[in-house]
Amino acid sequence: MQFNKQKRLKHLLTIDGLTKEHILEILNRAEGFFTPQGEIVQTDHLHGKTVANLFFEPSTRTRSTFELAAKKLSASVLNLDISHSSTSKGESLRDTVRNLQAMQCHIFVIRHSASGAAHFVTQQVKPGTVIINAGDGCHAHPTQALLDMFTLRKHRSEFHKLTIAIVGDILHSRVARSQIHALHILGAHEIRVIAPKTLLPKCVEQLGVNVFHDLKKGLQGVDVIMMLRLQTERMQSGLLPQGDAYYRLYGLTCDMLSNANPDALIIHPGPINRGIEIQSEIADSPNALILDQVTNGIAVRMSVMSLLMENAQK
Amino acid sequence: MQFNKQKRLKHLLTIDGLTKEHILEILNRAEGFFTPQGEIVQTDHLHGKTVANLFFEPSTRTRSTFELAAKKLSASVLNLDISHSSTSKGESLRDTVRNLQAMQCHIFVIRHSASGAAHFVTQQVKPGTVIINAGDGCHAHPTQALLDMFTLRKHRSEFHKLTIAIVGDILHSRVARSQIHALHILGAHEIRVIAPKTLLPKCVEQLGVNVFHDLKKGLQGVDVIMMLRLQTERMQSGLLPQGDAYYRLYGLTCDMLSNANPDALIIHPGPINRGIEIQSEIADSPNALILDQVTNGIAVRMSVMSLLMENAQK
Amino acid sequence: MQFNKQKRLKHLLTIDGLTKEHILEILNRAEGFFTPQGEIVQTDHLHGKTVANLFFEPSTRTRSTFELAAKKLSASVLNLDISHSSTSKGESLRDTVRNLQAMQCHIFVIRHSASGAAHFVTQQVKPGTVIINAGDGCHAHPTQALLDMFTLRKHRSEFHKLTIAIVGDILHSRVARSQIHALHILGAHEIRVIAPKTLLPKCVEQLGVNVFHDLKKGLQGVDVIMMLRLQTERMQSGLLPQGDAYYRLYGLTCDMLSNANPDALIIHPGPINRGIEIQSEIADSPNALILDQVTNGIAVRMSVMSLLMENAQK
Repeated sequence: MQFNKQKRLKHLLTIDGLTKEHILEILNRAEGFFTPQGEIVQTDHLHGKTVANLFFEPSTRTRSTFELAAKKLSASVLNLDISHSSTSKGESLRDTVRNLQAMQCHIFVIRHSASGAAHFVTQQVKPGTVIINAGDGCHAHPTQALLDMFTLRKHRSEFHKLTIAIVGDILHSRVARSQIHALHILGAHEIRVIAPKTLLPKCVEQLGVNVFHDLKKGLQGVDVIMMLRLQTERMQSGLLPQGDAYYRLYGLTCDMLSNANPDALIIHPGPINRGIEIQSEIADSPNALILDQVTNGIAVRMSVMSLLMENAQK
Repeated sequence: MQFNKQKRLKHLLTIDGLTKEHILEILNRAEGFFTPQGEIVQTDHLHGKTVANLFFEPSTRTRSTFELAAKKLSASVLNLDISHSSTSKGESLRDTVRNLQAMQCHIFVIRHSASGAAHFVTQQVKPGTVIINAGDGCHAHPTQALLDMFTLRKHRSEFHKLTIAIVGDILHSRVARSQIHALHILGAHEIRVIAPKTLLPKCVEQLGVNVFHDLKKGLQGVDVIMMLRLQTERMQSGLLPQGDAYYRLYGLTCDMLSNANPDALIIHPGPINRGIEIQSEIADSPNALILDQVTNGIAVRMSVMSLLMENAQK
Repeated sequence: MQFNKQKRLKHLLTIDGLTKEHILEILNRAEGFFTPQGEIVQTDHLHGKTVANLFFEPSTRTRSTFELAAKKLSASVLNLDISHSSTSKGESLRDTVRNLQAMQCHIFVIRHSASGAAHFVTQQVKPGTVIINAGDGCHAHPTQALLDMFTLRKHRSEFHKLTIAIVGDILHSRVARSQIHALHILGAHEIRVIAPKTLLPKCVEQLGVNVFHDLKKGLQGVDVIMMLRLQTERMQSGLLPQGDAYYRLYGLTCDMLSNANPDALIIHPGPINRGIEIQSEIADSPNALILDQVTNGIAVRMSVMSLLMENAQK
């Protein structure tokens, strides 16, 4: 659904199904948006184009970086606060999208609480329009996984040598799903998930991961730790050990970290909960690449938007 | 009030009082903003100018298309969410406008629940400032009527041969008032309004329209059907037959549509209520120009903004 | 904290500690942003730079003029509505700022209810980033004081001859504090504060001002009257004489104004409360420079942003 006949990307809905070449094309293009000093450049790639930021769930980080990425490409950005818009007054997602299409928006960045929302939208738009999934339910968050790969690759380019652990609420995490797909495609040596049973999907092994319920054991020999944000509202629902108990069992403390390889890298999609899923000192340590991820997210989103717009015009 | 001494438009407050030349000048200029492929062009007409979007009533479509139109003209746009601004803390409309004027906003796009709000504002600003009425109470919505005329003209250029029916809540509709004025000015053959008695203004015949209370009879021989959006909140107030009853009597169904001329065109200001005032299949049919209206709205608003700014500088 | 080693400004946190040269450099640069006709020019000073508007308190005027100023310098603007952002979900100011820094925002404009918030932020960012205090608690509002000085200087350039009275709620006013510092630095002849005892800070005389509790006496011989906005919510708390009583005692009426010098100028940071702290006729009189202040605020903020960005890059 996200490919044209030449198997080039026309939308970005999910990492699942991409080839290594697809991913590397995006990461390499993203590299090109940095100056040697690490500043992201201002370009004219999308001059005269309009990007509609269609966020049905609140988001500061993802929305802002998509907005900044679009402006760095000289696009116009239309931010739609959906909770105040006609959609909330009963207009369907389909009609909202078709109206925005009629407004000649060229790229739709969509976040929605329903898994598959971005897929649905691709069926509503004319050829030449680009749909980018910015997170749909528990399903996928492909640009997050791509920026994670970009960030890792800067420090550890040989994925086939890496053992990676994803820690936290795998069950509800679209980030984790997209990361697992991306790591497989790039040929990671071993992917582990570490979580209490209540926060793992059924049959999670089928994703090709090794499952650990014990953080200490799971971290042994690990090169990269991918923390997930804990949705603290889930603690109250009984899905999670409450308060300190979770931190004691699954929080990434300096003590716990000593079980991983000495130079293990830590990434986190943010915003971080200091003292809830991660010890504050670790978040601020040199091996934590959390702020690099934010910067790289702009370049990766510029890469995705400009590449897909080019493919769409072919 | 909206003309300068040479009878050129300096503001756009209402269609009432315009000449055919005024309207055609706007429509013709709007044509020029399209490429042969139907893309709206990026221009520099308003480079260095600032457009203040002053919406005292919620709106997604009109606000967004004014914003996009301004950006296509390379203007800066200042979106003011009035419900959160100092106006809501008691600053008067007059002081708000005078402050925005002091901020060197050149064009004010105003939507307000009070009829006459845009007229009032013209008295508060310095010469050279442009005021555009984006809907004031039940009074006028001139850019909507202009984009409707633009859309019709693309398909039926000979207005003197057209019989047009406006269907729905005429009483509360600023859109209907502006449409009736525009159709008269362009020399439409016959204008009909079709509505229950409770949704018609007193003395509506004085507007030069033929009145029908029966949809079936009203549609006979009609070339263009202009549907109005039903404010469903009015159903609860007893002004309207409730729920299905309205749809049965005044909803535009395929059945009903068969009474009009075979190639009758359908327009609607949006957002549409599928199954309330219009059958879903009709809204999606080739004769429904509802999404074209949205696209054309951008070009028409570009036309109005650039023309008035030019006139203001003379 | 706001100076580099060459004693040039790298941030703007407070007027306190600036030299006359610092202030004049900003005011003179601001002059250069006006055309001879008084229009503010569009420039490329900040092309490719990003300004983050970080308002933790609601504001229309200050936020809008910073946004317009940034756009006049061709910067990208990221408006962050903090009440809806991750900050409100518990992310700390420090993490918010570090994330925005990672998004390669170059200039942070910060309004916060806590005195010292902008100072704190300077310690969180990398060298080369510019922090501008847009109001912190009861502490400082330096760009407001600078635009006030700019506005005064246009009419009364010899500060050493001026007697100035600041009237209203001095106790809670960051504006008053910044104005007093600026007037001292520019060598004003005499600075008076006029307020009821409940609205004056302890030891206010240490700021080098003469204190009056009687408006009539305080205005005698005054060349400039700087009104403060009355936070009417404070009336209910018993800090203020209620309703008419305050206006009778401290409102600037035509009657009261006759005690000042005949050509006394009036400024006010806005939004004004007509009939509460100032008589409507005075606000609209030629000697009131309230709307000029708004216009000048854009040029002064352009000046501050472009100057500090230049200094930051040295």
